Amino acid sequence: MTAAELIEKKRDGKKLSGDEIAWLVASYTSDQIADYQMSAMLMAIYIRGLDAEELSAWTEAMLHSGDTLDFSDIDLPRIDKHSTGGVGDKVSIALAPMVAACGVGVPMMSGRGLGHTGGTLDKLEAIPGLRTTIDPTEFRQILGSIGVVMGGQTETLVPADRRLYALRDVTGTVPSIPLISSSIMSKKLAEDVQGVVLDVKVGLGAFMKDLEQARLLAETMVGIGTHRDTHTVALLTAMDQPLGTAVGNANETAECIELLRGDAPPDLTEITYRLGEEMLVLGGVASSNADARSALESAVSTGKALEKLSQLIVAQDGDPGVLEDLSLLPQPPEFVEVEAPADGFVVECHARRIGVASVLLGAGRLRKEDEVDPAVGIWVFAKEGESVSKGQPLARIGWRDRARLDRALAELETAWTIGAEAPPEKPLIMGEVR
Amino acid sequence: MTAAELIEKKRDGKKLSGDEIAWLVASYTSDQIADYQMSAMLMAIYIRGLDAEELSAWTEAMLHSGDTLDFSDIDLPRIDKHSTGGVGDKVSIALAPMVAACGVGVPMMSGRGLGHTGGTLDKLEAIPGLRTTIDPTEFRQILGSIGVVMGGQTETLVPADRRLYALRDVTGTVPSIPLISSSIMSKKLAEDVQGVVLDVKVGLGAFMKDLEQARLLAETMVGIGTHRDTHTVALLTAMDQPLGTAVGNANETAECIELLRGDAPPDLTEITYRLGEEMLVLGGVASSNADARSALESAVSTGKALEKLSQLIVAQDGDPGVLEDLSLLPQPPEFVEVEAPADGFVVECHARRIGVASVLLGAGRLRKEDEVDPAVGIWVFAKEGESVSKGQPLARIGWRDRARLDRALAELETAWTIGAEAPPEKPLIMGEVR
Repeated sequence: MTAAELIEKKRDGKKLSGDEIAWLVASYTSDQIADYQMSAMLMAIYIRGLDAEELSAWTEAMLHSGDTLDFSDIDLPRIDKHSTGGVGDKVSIALAPMVAACGVGVPMMSGRGLGHTGGTLDKLEAIPGLRTTIDPTEFRQILGSIGVVMGGQTETLVPADRRLYALRDVTGTVPSIPLISSSIMSKKLAEDVQGVVLDVKVGLGAFMKDLEQARLLAETMVGIGTHRDTHTVALLTAMDQPLGTAVGNANETAECIELLRGDAPPDLTEITYRLGEEMLVLGGVASSNADARSALESAVSTGKALEKLSQLIVAQDGDPGVLEDLSLLPQPPEFVEVEAPADGFVVECHARRIGVASVLLGAGRLRKEDEVDPAVGIWVFAKEGESVSKGQPLARIGWRDRARLDRALAELETAWTIGAEAPPEKPLIMGEVR
Repeated sequence: MTAAELIEKKRDGKKLSGDEIAWLVASYTSDQIADYQMSAMLMAIYIRGLDAEELSAWTEAMLHSGDTLDFSDIDLPRIDKHSTGGVGDKVSIALAPMVAACGVGVPMMSGRGLGHTGGTLDKLEAIPGLRTTIDPTEFRQILGSIGVVMGGQTETLVPADRRLYALRDVTGTVPSIPLISSSIMSKKLAEDVQGVVLDVKVGLGAFMKDLEQARLLAETMVGIGTHRDTHTVALLTAMDQPLGTAVGNANETAECIELLRGDAPPDLTEITYRLGEEMLVLGGVASSNADARSALESAVSTGKALEKLSQLIVAQDGDPGVLEDLSLLPQPPEFVEVEAPADGFVVECHARRIGVASVLLGAGRLRKEDEVDPAVGIWVFAKEGESVSKGQPLARIGWRDRARLDRALAELETAWTIGAEAPPEKPLIMGEVR
């Protein structure tokens, strides 16, 4: 078997065997196959695709490129959730403690901001002192003691994915459904969970702009999970406009704390509860979505969910005082408002543009090595369908650097479209795949 | 412009502009674009193709990746010939001096053995002392003084091709008509010739197994040459069985000397003369193929062609004594014959298998860094359509190493097919494109 032979096979649209895929991924991980060979293979896969069997083998090979976790000695059902990424998507920070408060363990490995979308780790780290770099021993210890832990991907878990992702990023092979699916699912499967709930975002601010493509991605990921006896459910959710009000880091974390206090924007609340329902049902602690919803609502109203977040913050060396006093989170030194240019209805509140503006402010990274500024961000006041009057604030911007503010404002100029008539209402949950 | 954007464009089947292609090739040559990006692009080109305009731009960009020669002060028409590679294809060594003896300059840059096919440089170097590493100054000086020179590709000519070829070789992107065409034509166009005659081999021992594919390759290369006002003609010639009798290095050179003495196998003689005719017509020293044929026959019969080869050998530091005494060429220490297993007709004399056997004997390279043994080789006595009797020698093998001989004999076991009836006669010249 040589790399060139396997590349030629896929190039010509033929099917790779399980052994061939295992050899290819293992050889790449051990530097027996060069980046320039793998990138040619990735392009061949991009164009020719992988069938379900190849995709299972590819995911399995990724999974076995490094360590996998084993939590079998922890006496809790374990379910994780993954979002394909959106703007204002801070769901995990509220969801993980809510679900854990209901008796389902959540060993969550998250990522950082990528492009115009934020990352859970950056948002969590806005809490003073909080650490997200947690080694496997501590990860297991925290999960075992409080039922929830939120850390970064460890170096030894699915190392093939880190290398493949970096390579895909510079070789035009990112938006491939089999490559995205295997990347996401290999990481989730390595976490030793019994189930995975996927939030596949669809729309202007999402990776998938189109419902059909999003559904195909969801079906592909659910297929991979099911093939490996890991119950997997995907919700397809709207991402034309930001989720909730806050876009940034500290302000998104604050909004999650508000959610756990029972007071958050309805779209954020609804999606968080819907994902939580699926997690409780998959975890076997609720027999129906309605039961699950009651349990989640109770966890919030009794303060147990907030208490779980407090335990999580303490376990990860953060200051739990932020739960009582949101002003302990980093605050932007300056504010400015974006005003409605005319009377009318918000027809479009463009998630990607607002996400880009947030990155430009400093809340995200233009280059991988950039640091994020946790304090700056955007509060989106006017969402689709709302009526606004000329001069009314559409958003508030918390900023630090004038030049960055100017670039963000330029990006925001086209973020809102005001029309004479209210647009048709769009569903928040666009579909589900199970 | 970023490499990833251009890769995505071609990945999606869109057309690259001339500027984009020029930037891409120049950036690759100057290490601004990594191998792993170029290999993804090559795979996208392999699958999506390049149209005529893109191909011209790509060839032009390759050509401008390094120096180009300028022979405008040499008062001779200049025509080169290129073969896509076959087994026993020693044509150049006889053809170049024949054509030069008729008044057409031949600045020939050749290659080394590749896979199962031999290379002109390896064959020429079988002549004791002969050098094929010739710098541009000397190349011009030899061409100017005797009208013919045969050297290796210089480092500064089309450097992009050397890098791209090495990359294609290990990334499954070799057999792509646009990539092959631009590789061949950029090197020929860099030689400052007025015309190029291409010998596109078709059959079991050729790169192109199929006449239609070969014709497409020929048309593509002729298109590139014509677009650049370099007259280009391609002959499509049969390569199911080896050309002539000798397969190896010294023995192939010896067969060329015999051809210049007027005594060589008819298939080798015919193809050499047909290619020569085209070169003389393109060079403007003959007004028709018939006139050209007469001139070539006269150059051979008067000894002028052999004298030209003598001048070439002397100019390149070789021993011209070989022309009088073929035994001065390296000789194999041992011989063995392959005998016909039955009475009948030769139905197949498999060029590729015989080529592989020759490589296994030591006449070619299994790895790039191997040295060739100029003495060893194969003499093919029984070609397609000939009747043979059981025990009659099909071939003689000149060998040095027993283990290598055994591997070569194993490969030769399936090289000849003997049948009860003579196969239908096949044309030697299968078509032409101009």
